[in-house]
Amino acid sequence: MSSPVAIKLIHALYTVPVRPRGAVYRDYCVAVADDRVVDILPLADALQKWPDAEMTDLPEHVLLPGLINAHTHSPMTLLRGFADDTELHVWLKQHIWPAEREFVGPEFVADGTRLAVAEMIRAGTTCFNDMYFFPDATIEVCVETGIRASIGITIIEIESAWASDVDDYIDKGLQLADKWQSEPLISFTLSPHAPYTVSDETLVRVAQLSKERGFPVHIHLLETEWEVKQSYQQHDLHPLNRLESSGLLDENLQAVHMAQLSSDDIDRLAALGVNVIHCPQSNLKLASGICPLTALLGAGVNVALGTDGAAANNDLDLLAEAQTAALLAKGISGDAKSVDAFQALEMMTINGAHALGLEQVTGSIEIGKQADFCALDLSAPETQPLYNVVSQVIYAASRRQFTDVWVAGKRLLYGGELTTIDLDDVICSAGKWQTRLAGLEAGMMATARKSDL
Amino acid sequence: MSSPVAIKLIHALYTVPVRPRGAVYRDYCVAVADDRVVDILPLADALQKWPDAEMTDLPEHVLLPGLINAHTHSPMTLLRGFADDTELHVWLKQHIWPAEREFVGPEFVADGTRLAVAEMIRAGTTCFNDMYFFPDATIEVCVETGIRASIGITIIEIESAWASDVDDYIDKGLQLADKWQSEPLISFTLSPHAPYTVSDETLVRVAQLSKERGFPVHIHLLETEWEVKQSYQQHDLHPLNRLESSGLLDENLQAVHMAQLSSDDIDRLAALGVNVIHCPQSNLKLASGICPLTALLGAGVNVALGTDGAAANNDLDLLAEAQTAALLAKGISGDAKSVDAFQALEMMTINGAHALGLEQVTGSIEIGKQADFCALDLSAPETQPLYNVVSQVIYAASRRQFTDVWVAGKRLLYGGELTTIDLDDVICSAGKWQTRLAGLEAGMMATARKSDL
Repeated sequence: MSSPVAIKLIHALYTVPVRPRGAVYRDYCVAVADDRVVDILPLADALQKWPDAEMTDLPEHVLLPGLINAHTHSPMTLLRGFADDTELHVWLKQHIWPAEREFVGPEFVADGTRLAVAEMIRAGTTCFNDMYFFPDATIEVCVETGIRASIGITIIEIESAWASDVDDYIDKGLQLADKWQSEPLISFTLSPHAPYTVSDETLVRVAQLSKERGFPVHIHLLETEWEVKQSYQQHDLHPLNRLESSGLLDENLQAVHMAQLSSDDIDRLAALGVNVIHCPQSNLKLASGICPLTALLGAGVNVALGTDGAAANNDLDLLAEAQTAALLAKGISGDAKSVDAFQALEMMTINGAHALGLEQVTGSIEIGKQADFCALDLSAPETQPLYNVVSQVIYAASRRQFTDVWVAGKRLLYGGELTTIDLDDVICSAGKWQTRLAGLEAGMMATARKSDL
Repeated sequence: MSSPVAIKLIHALYTVPVRPRGAVYRDYCVAVADDRVVDILPLADALQKWPDAEMTDLPEHVLLPGLINAHTHSPMTLLRGFADDTELHVWLKQHIWPAEREFVGPEFVADGTRLAVAEMIRAGTTCFNDMYFFPDATIEVCVETGIRASIGITIIEIESAWASDVDDYIDKGLQLADKWQSEPLISFTLSPHAPYTVSDETLVRVAQLSKERGFPVHIHLLETEWEVKQSYQQHDLHPLNRLESSGLLDENLQAVHMAQLSSDDIDRLAALGVNVIHCPQSNLKLASGICPLTALLGAGVNVALGTDGAAANNDLDLLAEAQTAALLAKGISGDAKSVDAFQALEMMTINGAHALGLEQVTGSIEIGKQADFCALDLSAPETQPLYNVVSQVIYAASRRQFTDVWVAGKRLLYGGELTTIDLDDVICSAGKWQTRLAGLEAGMMATARKSDL
């Protein structure tokens, strides 16, 4: 006879499970066995049912599903603020790409991911979607730190230190997917970089692979006006039509950015079940365009949120993205009722899970799902008085109010302290890369000045 | 012979004095005597000059001029999140105004201001412009807590618990200004509420009073499309022309919002020296419109930042306003170079001081000015690595990284703790008002449902 599984109870002042929609429970407990939610019930009932359970008390907090950052490039956190206030193509070609050529390798990726994961856990994030080189190093950091991740198998027609050509990117990616297939924290997407860096042939191959292996497809799409023009010039097709003819425009697609989406195409996306990953702060900062969020949600499109990489944005603060998304949608649509606080909460939880193909696993606090939660302390003056919990989270709270985070039942943030990451170590590594990268930038600037003479 | 004034030294890893433009000093000291800055110099020189001075060490921080919140209604912090995601006029007429009619009085104003001041000091703010009823209660809280404030003498053609008519508003306001004229922390503005709530006669009277008494004029202006339409209907004039013909369109004017400003008028504002107070988050959240920041700064208009009241926004986080202002300007103008990090920093410091008529007093760290500073800890993972201090502050940091705040040489935040405000007390008061206000709202909802039958 096996011994009964130990129950842990998490009692919060408020619990907002996201599903059922709109529910706000006061003085409830979430019961966790191992890595899963087994019950959600009033405190008194929980104490009666499991009088000896280990209890975590969050008397001034709201317990939420863990936040899902549906698009980032975590190692690029080492390039945070490296070249701000610069036009996108200058930023990429004169600053970011030279730095990457010089330094990207397993050590850069591991150190950058560890810094990113530290920041994300401290900001309530329990799952992120990553797209970068050396994903083996990213996965190892995720497993070591206990965060959930959807790992992009990056595919691009440009040689890098990680892979030489499309075959190499795909082979190495699929080998990784095989190697880690039994790791419950890790899932995979096929991640062709963007329509303008991937050939038609490769797009068709990605669509076939997606069907064969059951992996979702993650792609930067309709980010800039330039991308649309370039697509017409090179392929005589709008990028959406190009993806459709490659067999990619369906419910397995995670279309990141969509800042150049015209209203005509929104119903088509809704009908096909395409997921949109909205990165509002990145789109604003790089002046890419504005994703038509109100219309997308109105048409029933599943919209999740991403921070994009910290080189662009410059943080991994998903709550701030939700705030910006809601405010921007109201401002742009001219309707203060557009994108309410609960919709903003859904975008950073259940919609993210749905987009990443993890809706059965995470994104809401429901019986049978993984125990992925974050707790936010509402007792600060910044979140008092309190009339509406969800509105307070979206419009008034800030990331530093997250005190506790669990992934698969394991507490990764405990009273504001990381339990699986040595923060001093991470910051020390960041300093080491800062010295190297600042040196490179200074050298490049000196060369640029010389060549001006 | 008088004894020499004691010198206090503040040594920070970085000091960004804002003036001279673009300066970033590493390992400098700011020397303070009593309430004023007397020197800014390298650490070694400071130690030699004043070997016995009291030293504050901020080894991982940036020292900035204290932030200036150029527009808020601080008592309304008690209405934070009271009725979100609602259209402006419904929000005002069905929620905010009934609540104000029921509760606004000296106790509400004092408790709300104390909560607001606690939040503002914790967010690096050393000076704010307030517009509300019972300003005597606001002033008393400012003096008690040591924060600097520009107090609006509210003028509106609507009776309130504070005053019965325009004469009464003006008389009571001027009495207060006389009473507090020797208080260095307090200055005054004449604050006609908005063009649509003040008559032509009153606007002319305000302009005359402004000239006689030397008070700036603070007014909500061009906030909504409705306001412009209403002005044509009632006065057959655009609001700007109405203000101009009243003698108000000059360098003494603080025009708050300007979310309906057409490009034609921008050069006129620049030529006349009108100050614009930009409240980007409030304008987005209430879907008022978008102030054309890039064009205003390009034309040389002085633009400061305000949070607006927490009933609308829902916080008093000026750093977040600067971030939103910069991002939104880039996104709307389509130019990633528009409104760089240093311009965003200027908007929340020196531009605010200029707008409020306090440029000789505060807004930059300069010899002879008041010792109004805030210190932000850059050592958190969220602000590492560090390539550019100002960019890191604007694009990556968050308000909870402010650790220390001084106003007129007095340390109001010390290692993250308020020194002049009992936070437990403030939060307890907020809870008391929450109960009263939530009760009122529930009652109103019940009545509304009944009347639907």
